[in-house]
Amino acid sequence: MLRYLFNPKSIAVIGASREPEKLGHIALRNIVLSGFKGKVYPVNQAARRILNLKCYPSVRNIPGNIDMAMFSIPAQYVLAALKDAVSKRVKAGIIITAGFKETGPQGAAMEKEIQAVAKKHKISLIGPNCVGLISTSASMNATFSITPKIPRQGEITFFSQSGALAMGILDWTIKEQIGLSKLISLGNKIDVDEIKLLKHLENDSQTKVILGYLEGIEHGIEFMKIARRVSRKKPIIMVKGGTTKAGARAVSSHTGSLAGRDAAYQAAFRQSGIIRVNTLPELFDVAKAFIKTKLLKGPNIGIVTNSGGPAILATDVLEKSPVLELAPFGNKTIETLRRNLPPGVGIYNPVDLIADADKARYTFAINTVLKDPKVDGVLVIYTPATSELTPDELARTIIELAGKSAKPIFAVFMGGEFASAGFKVFSEAHFPYYQMPEQAIFAFEAAMRYHNIRQQPVRPVIKRFNAHANSIAGKIINTAIINGHSQLGAETALKICASYGIKVPQNLIARTANEAVRMAKQIGFPVVMKIVSPDIIHKSDVNGVRLNVSDAEDVKVVFDEIIITAQSRAPSAHIEGVSIQKMVAGGKEVIIGMARDRQFGPLLMFGLGGIYVETLKDVSFRVLPLSEPEALSMIKEIKGYPILSGVRGEARADIEAIKETILRLAELVTDFPQISELDINPFKVFENNHGGLALDARLSLKGTDWL
Amino acid sequence: MLRYLFNPKSIAVIGASREPEKLGHIALRNIVLSGFKGKVYPVNQAARRILNLKCYPSVRNIPGNIDMAMFSIPAQYVLAALKDAVSKRVKAGIIITAGFKETGPQGAAMEKEIQAVAKKHKISLIGPNCVGLISTSASMNATFSITPKIPRQGEITFFSQSGALAMGILDWTIKEQIGLSKLISLGNKIDVDEIKLLKHLENDSQTKVILGYLEGIEHGIEFMKIARRVSRKKPIIMVKGGTTKAGARAVSSHTGSLAGRDAAYQAAFRQSGIIRVNTLPELFDVAKAFIKTKLLKGPNIGIVTNSGGPAILATDVLEKSPVLELAPFGNKTIETLRRNLPPGVGIYNPVDLIADADKARYTFAINTVLKDPKVDGVLVIYTPATSELTPDELARTIIELAGKSAKPIFAVFMGGEFASAGFKVFSEAHFPYYQMPEQAIFAFEAAMRYHNIRQQPVRPVIKRFNAHANSIAGKIINTAIINGHSQLGAETALKICASYGIKVPQNLIARTANEAVRMAKQIGFPVVMKIVSPDIIHKSDVNGVRLNVSDAEDVKVVFDEIIITAQSRAPSAHIEGVSIQKMVAGGKEVIIGMARDRQFGPLLMFGLGGIYVETLKDVSFRVLPLSEPEALSMIKEIKGYPILSGVRGEARADIEAIKETILRLAELVTDFPQISELDINPFKVFENNHGGLALDARLSLKGTDWL
Repeated sequence: MLRYLFNPKSIAVIGASREPEKLGHIALRNIVLSGFKGKVYPVNQAARRILNLKCYPSVRNIPGNIDMAMFSIPAQYVLAALKDAVSKRVKAGIIITAGFKETGPQGAAMEKEIQAVAKKHKISLIGPNCVGLISTSASMNATFSITPKIPRQGEITFFSQSGALAMGILDWTIKEQIGLSKLISLGNKIDVDEIKLLKHLENDSQTKVILGYLEGIEHGIEFMKIARRVSRKKPIIMVKGGTTKAGARAVSSHTGSLAGRDAAYQAAFRQSGIIRVNTLPELFDVAKAFIKTKLLKGPNIGIVTNSGGPAILATDVLEKSPVLELAPFGNKTIETLRRNLPPGVGIYNPVDLIADADKARYTFAINTVLKDPKVDGVLVIYTPATSELTPDELARTIIELAGKSAKPIFAVFMGGEFASAGFKVFSEAHFPYYQMPEQAIFAFEAAMRYHNIRQQPVRPVIKRFNAHANSIAGKIINTAIINGHSQLGAETALKICASYGIKVPQNLIARTANEAVRMAKQIGFPVVMKIVSPDIIHKSDVNGVRLNVSDAEDVKVVFDEIIITAQSRAPSAHIEGVSIQKMVAGGKEVIIGMARDRQFGPLLMFGLGGIYVETLKDVSFRVLPLSEPEALSMIKEIKGYPILSGVRGEARADIEAIKETILRLAELVTDFPQISELDINPFKVFENNHGGLALDARLSLKGTDWL
Repeated sequence: MLRYLFNPKSIAVIGASREPEKLGHIALRNIVLSGFKGKVYPVNQAARRILNLKCYPSVRNIPGNIDMAMFSIPAQYVLAALKDAVSKRVKAGIIITAGFKETGPQGAAMEKEIQAVAKKHKISLIGPNCVGLISTSASMNATFSITPKIPRQGEITFFSQSGALAMGILDWTIKEQIGLSKLISLGNKIDVDEIKLLKHLENDSQTKVILGYLEGIEHGIEFMKIARRVSRKKPIIMVKGGTTKAGARAVSSHTGSLAGRDAAYQAAFRQSGIIRVNTLPELFDVAKAFIKTKLLKGPNIGIVTNSGGPAILATDVLEKSPVLELAPFGNKTIETLRRNLPPGVGIYNPVDLIADADKARYTFAINTVLKDPKVDGVLVIYTPATSELTPDELARTIIELAGKSAKPIFAVFMGGEFASAGFKVFSEAHFPYYQMPEQAIFAFEAAMRYHNIRQQPVRPVIKRFNAHANSIAGKIINTAIINGHSQLGAETALKICASYGIKVPQNLIARTANEAVRMAKQIGFPVVMKIVSPDIIHKSDVNGVRLNVSDAEDVKVVFDEIIITAQSRAPSAHIEGVSIQKMVAGGKEVIIGMARDRQFGPLLMFGLGGIYVETLKDVSFRVLPLSEPEALSMIKEIKGYPILSGVRGEARADIEAIKETILRLAELVTDFPQISELDINPFKVFENNHGGLALDARLSLKGTDWL
């Protein structure tokens, strides 16, 4: 019952204190002084009145109903107090007390007990080890923040895994006049975590934009599922803290070593429609853009300005954006501007109305640009250059024009002191305005990303090849596990891949020279010949690999050479024969891999093969479920994609074959959670319509996840 | 005499107006109301008094001396008014009037005349077509800004090529309480441009940090020379506007097509010690860090915080920085912190003093961290979490500790409303503080870059090979120019390169099969054989190239084949013979190129060769003069550098050979300004100490520059 956390009619403060520096006092003071209109009951066994409110020795002694209880008592007493609250039918609680999981096993055990009680009695709990929450619609500061002030009411909800960071943001939003709906410090997430919170906010009419600061997620797959649904209704914008600290990990694959700790989060956020930003100021710059504006429906931005320099800066950022375009104006727009604006005005995009622009000129230009069907959104830039136009007058004009338009308008008022009359008008109207051009373009970029997110289906359509009907992979994997083999080499790994429909070179094993010749003829010359022995791991040690064997005579000679050399250099080895494979010429090498993430499951990787994979780290990642369009976007995302799509007259590689291989690999690792890492490296991809071949592979069965 | 612009004792406002909306009125009003203490004389032929000041019909009628004149009269009258000013011995002037160069040839001609007068009489002129300047030490607002307010006095000087942007920044600095020394709008730069300004600011005791917004530079090489000198004394931080707009250019080299318009600026800024940032907020975030702090002398940053989340965000940004490190504390530091701080406190870097940290705990931790020889700078983070410590008290403490320390301290106070008591203390002391952790790390990064800049010599030592004593290149180039050849192919281009000591494969031309065999034996097998004919441009059209010819017998056969095929397919061609070259095996391909920039001269490029050059754009650029360390840094800068330095057990390539080739190319293009573009592609580089070979080259002689 999360709504009782945000809009309770009555609150009991368990552990309310008379001493002003104690959290139990501050929490009570904040609820009272922030303007909370409901009933507040301090619970204190010794005191009779605190802050002029009657005290009760226990929550059970309170006469009326209690919707929500705040716990500010030592950790060891919380369980008993919660049981009291249960008997009083309290519906929600905030445990600000620390000293639980974060202190060790004993604290964790206490948490477990509290969790069980809350679950049984369906009490929604925030914390423990949190600073509480703020709900502006209830005029309620239920935190131990240093002052009881709360931000003005708005439609942004911010939640944070760091309590201190939430306090910093709280103080900042008050000063910056940013409207908030809710601010929540999640703490140890005993009950309410980011998943439950997203579910609640999905239908919360007071929340239009969801912002979050996260350091870690426990249930990645569930989180993605909810986020994917909620993000289609409301923008979710997040900062992820702790992105670079690389933990010590034992990984044996390229995929694992290239992934780092952040790749899975990056992929999961992207695939579930979360807009990720890197810094806290960006979080709020972007949030503003979703409050009182129309949604951006296309990439083309028109700019109307009274000053060149700021428009140049905006254009610089815009042209670097991968999702935005400087709108190409239609001829009609250009002609209309030319006919109606004074000479000297810039009539192309950006429209430069020059320093003496007045209200009429701005209005005419904005309306003309808005009407252009090639324009999806408009950025209005104003610099306080002359007194023709005051910033507040222009701000009101922009708000009015935006109200009548189906397209979004953002404003940049460059300045501070004089421009602040304009900021005030915008701020009161919750209208998106910025002080610097770069911020506005960044917000437009987020708006465009959000448009793209809304175009994607909530449930990705997953192509199933139903390869699991084939039991080869299962048999090989079970045998390996029984035999304690955790690393499978090329031959076995490729066999498993092949059983899932991934193309591998035909591989025949000849026991005699004549058989080798027959097989080579069957496969077609030239061929590759390799020694086959379970006892010879490094084939090159026994000179056991020959490339490019080109005719029957050579096959015969090479067969004997390989066998004789192996017998002399590894006399005790059991030799099964010599493998005959088609010599693969041409094509381009790519890597397709998987490493399993503890939170998000299989993390797939794609990149160009060879030395470039490691050096340039030009790879892309996705988590599951992986739709066909996502698999394709994964291929197109790498910087080296033109090398595959055909650059300088080279032939286009068979992108479809790569895509299918990625999807089949996804199916394989979904069916077999025992596979912890898998690299197909190289996967040789040929010209369009000529498919590709997995030439080498490694597979790890660790039993445990790699991250 | 630039000092008369910034600290005049008397000002004449030529074109002062009674009408409040006219620029000539606003300019006068601003000078008077901003608190200028010197004498102000309005010049107006009709009026008797304006703003209670006596008017004069001409500057010549003014009784006293005039240091500086402001011109706010129509463009066509400026020259005559300037001549009047000359006769009055005015020493400096600001022409705010527009209608000059920017309007066409007539305006440009007027500018030239004004320029000549100013030069002859040594008058320093700002403008025309500018908004003027502000000098806080003179309490003077000599602009037509919308209000006469000026920022508080400080040590930052900001100049701008965009007047509107200067006005926006002016208004912003007033609101944000940022201290400025000067703010200058450069306008059309008739006299004072960025070069003269830098020269003046170099010795201006009121300027400690120089900020600039530039869109274009006219005299790039002179600018670099001055900037290189000034940047060793004072940080120069710049935003360059207009970075992405790609002009239509006719380029024929890879270097030219990869360079874009921004590469030369990027290289020039870097090589002359200018810290380039991308946005205006960053400009001032960085500037703050150089005012009242010690210079950072190493990369290792210690963090002291009372809250985890913000420290994590700071660490994230820090670890991504290419120049900073999270300081590894010495054992002594860790032990001292452990012994003296309460349990639960984080004693490693970042030191987390947790929420109840008071003044004593902060002081102890900061002092301990400062003492660690492995720490070069300290970031103090504070979140208003509890009431143990007020922000103003901590701010005063930090300022005091910083005053006693030889290492810089920056502060992040996360918050706004409550934290503002701390901001106030910092702001009054001009102490570097930030509201978000990312900003502070960004400032530390700039501080570290500045440290590195100061380590570099002002005059780069240029290695001269004195190849110009050899006249081969000159002869070939002159002949080509006389014959009207602007594109030189591989053979000629390589000959020119070779004359400058760049290694090329030995290339002998055989006229008979026997001669071919002799030459091949001399060069060593295998060889490459190619048809040589001035009439056959595409050798492959006549099947005129054979690789890997491996013995004498083959050479004979191939020679005849090549000649016969050429004779039959191109019967009218004059065939000179067949060239014999060593077949080059192994090694790695790189590209070394040059394209000439109009402002900055030769722009050198280095990158990995082949398809990756174009696709991944993994290339680096430098302008001249190019020192040996800069040439080396150019090689190391590309992302693919590990491919050359040896990755996964591969041999290290001969980096020295690449470096020398770059330096020799630099000498060649310095000696021959006729060369507009030159690509050596590929340059084949072998294992360490095995040198490299220029295998192919293209050279353009355009006569004109390429950009």
